[in-house]
Amino acid sequence: MKDVTLGIDIGGTNTKFGFVDREGYLYAETSVSTIKTAPGDVVAYLKYVHEEIEKLRATVDEKLNIVGCGIGAPNGNYFTGTIEYAPNLTFQGVVPLIQMFQEYYDVPMVLTNDANAAAIGEMIYGDAKGMKNFIMITLGTGLGSGFVVNGDLIYGNDGFAGEMGHIMNNPRGRTCGLGRQGCLEAYVSATGIKRTVFKLLADMTEATPLRDITFNNLTGAKITELALEGDPVAEAAFDYTAELLGRKLSDMVAIFSPEAIFLLGGLAKAGDFLFKPTKKYMEEHMFEIFKNKVPILPSGLEDRNAAVLGASALAWKEIDPIVDVSTQP
Amino acid sequence: MKDVTLGIDIGGTNTKFGFVDREGYLYAETSVSTIKTAPGDVVAYLKYVHEEIEKLRATVDEKLNIVGCGIGAPNGNYFTGTIEYAPNLTFQGVVPLIQMFQEYYDVPMVLTNDANAAAIGEMIYGDAKGMKNFIMITLGTGLGSGFVVNGDLIYGNDGFAGEMGHIMNNPRGRTCGLGRQGCLEAYVSATGIKRTVFKLLADMTEATPLRDITFNNLTGAKITELALEGDPVAEAAFDYTAELLGRKLSDMVAIFSPEAIFLLGGLAKAGDFLFKPTKKYMEEHMFEIFKNKVPILPSGLEDRNAAVLGASALAWKEIDPIVDVSTQP
Repeated sequence: MKDVTLGIDIGGTNTKFGFVDREGYLYAETSVSTIKTAPGDVVAYLKYVHEEIEKLRATVDEKLNIVGCGIGAPNGNYFTGTIEYAPNLTFQGVVPLIQMFQEYYDVPMVLTNDANAAAIGEMIYGDAKGMKNFIMITLGTGLGSGFVVNGDLIYGNDGFAGEMGHIMNNPRGRTCGLGRQGCLEAYVSATGIKRTVFKLLADMTEATPLRDITFNNLTGAKITELALEGDPVAEAAFDYTAELLGRKLSDMVAIFSPEAIFLLGGLAKAGDFLFKPTKKYMEEHMFEIFKNKVPILPSGLEDRNAAVLGASALAWKEIDPIVDVSTQP
Repeated sequence: MKDVTLGIDIGGTNTKFGFVDREGYLYAETSVSTIKTAPGDVVAYLKYVHEEIEKLRATVDEKLNIVGCGIGAPNGNYFTGTIEYAPNLTFQGVVPLIQMFQEYYDVPMVLTNDANAAAIGEMIYGDAKGMKNFIMITLGTGLGSGFVVNGDLIYGNDGFAGEMGHIMNNPRGRTCGLGRQGCLEAYVSATGIKRTVFKLLADMTEATPLRDITFNNLTGAKITELALEGDPVAEAAFDYTAELLGRKLSDMVAIFSPEAIFLLGGLAKAGDFLFKPTKKYMEEHMFEIFKNKVPILPSGLEDRNAAVLGASALAWKEIDPIVDVSTQP
């Protein structure tokens, strides 16, 4: 019987989870659809996730004893254990997630936003090891962010700090979830780059397979695939996305002066197509004293999921605060 | 003989300083011109400041023994004791300020940016007492900022964190010091509102005494005075300034989720003309979960100078790190 914590990363499209022991060994990990159940039906969603967790647990030879659970989710509140008004989830209003999920697992449970969880995963197991000041950006359905300052995550006064996806790109710009206008994540995210492709299909005249794909059928992965093949519209969409992201990152550097910025999530899989122009535009807009100081890096965890690992590490911390997980190898 | 630290607040226009004892009692304070000496001549400037400090010390009945010195200055680096490429000072390049000033006072000396110093002053002696997460904005010649997270100032990886004046308002906008374009402080500062007045004199047709003042003769104080008298252009200039500031503050709330935001400095003396519209625009752009949570407040130190008090407190901390100045009344 092996004690493990359950790490869960709830995204707009997929929910990922895995079992992690105290030493950081990941026993099994999988990804299921966040939106498979009826939209907004949290009860059905949690029942389904629980079933999938138990299916995964059954695949592991060793018997796993779940002693805690850490969850990363958009607008997840560390202080209250609730998800509140998350634009990229179908759950409406305020969802008492921990309270509801403890009906399945009566163990210590902790919630934070998904990018905060990824920041912790990167800090404990990945390439942010030893860094006291860094920024984690997750580019999935939305844009999440976690800020580590003096070695600690910023939770802020109400537990919701780190919502860079909702800083303003253009006050008269694209409508985003909740009816706001011009949020950065309406431009810089898998959803955002899809919207950009459609703007560019209107602006440009080049032939591209993108002209034969409907809005609803287009994915971030497809745009990445086409960019890698040299498609002019897909490439331009990455350049546009990188310019907006790069500008805002130069703002963040002026505020935080971090040691590094990490980009994770689906869009980050485009590699140089995203990282190179983002770095170029960031440096172009950078305030003199910060120029050429801050690298933009991919996760050092390769195929392992930083948010799942980070959420599980948070749970271990909750169970045994004396164990400093950050000093583990 | 009373032990005091010297607190100095170097601004683009004025340099303020005073003597503060360990209990936070301010013995004497004064303000001299930063730009009286030849522009960029740091040697002459420091000689002049030293003479003025000694003049002030001579006015105090009790004999004051300077045991330390704290300095707040734009682009002041806490780690290196240097001022680097400060757009609002005439000093060029990298100035080893502490090294140079220790020729006058051979005592422990500490430098940080002016808004960081003000944040510490407000936290120890003012209305941020007991707050663990807040933002300090200083609106003088430029726009300075200090961010307190989990009870500590953010210095960042290189000691320069907290330069909100250099986040981007408009990438094709006004030129600022160092030749960058569109920095927030080119809009939101005493210099910025003056530029806005001249834009509005072009855009609007209303009669106003502002049409008889040259650019070089106009001051932030005059614009404030006219706004208080109901001048339509001055009022519009405050509204424009407040809109840009309010938007960026809503961005900062999404990142930091602070308990409060403090506005200090010359422009903040306009009171409701600045605070009310800034709050209105901040709430208009605020992401749902943060709405109506964060007050915008003036300094609680009234006529005392938060940056002078904060810089002197930093010096006390340097001398005797065991004394927790933050617990003083």
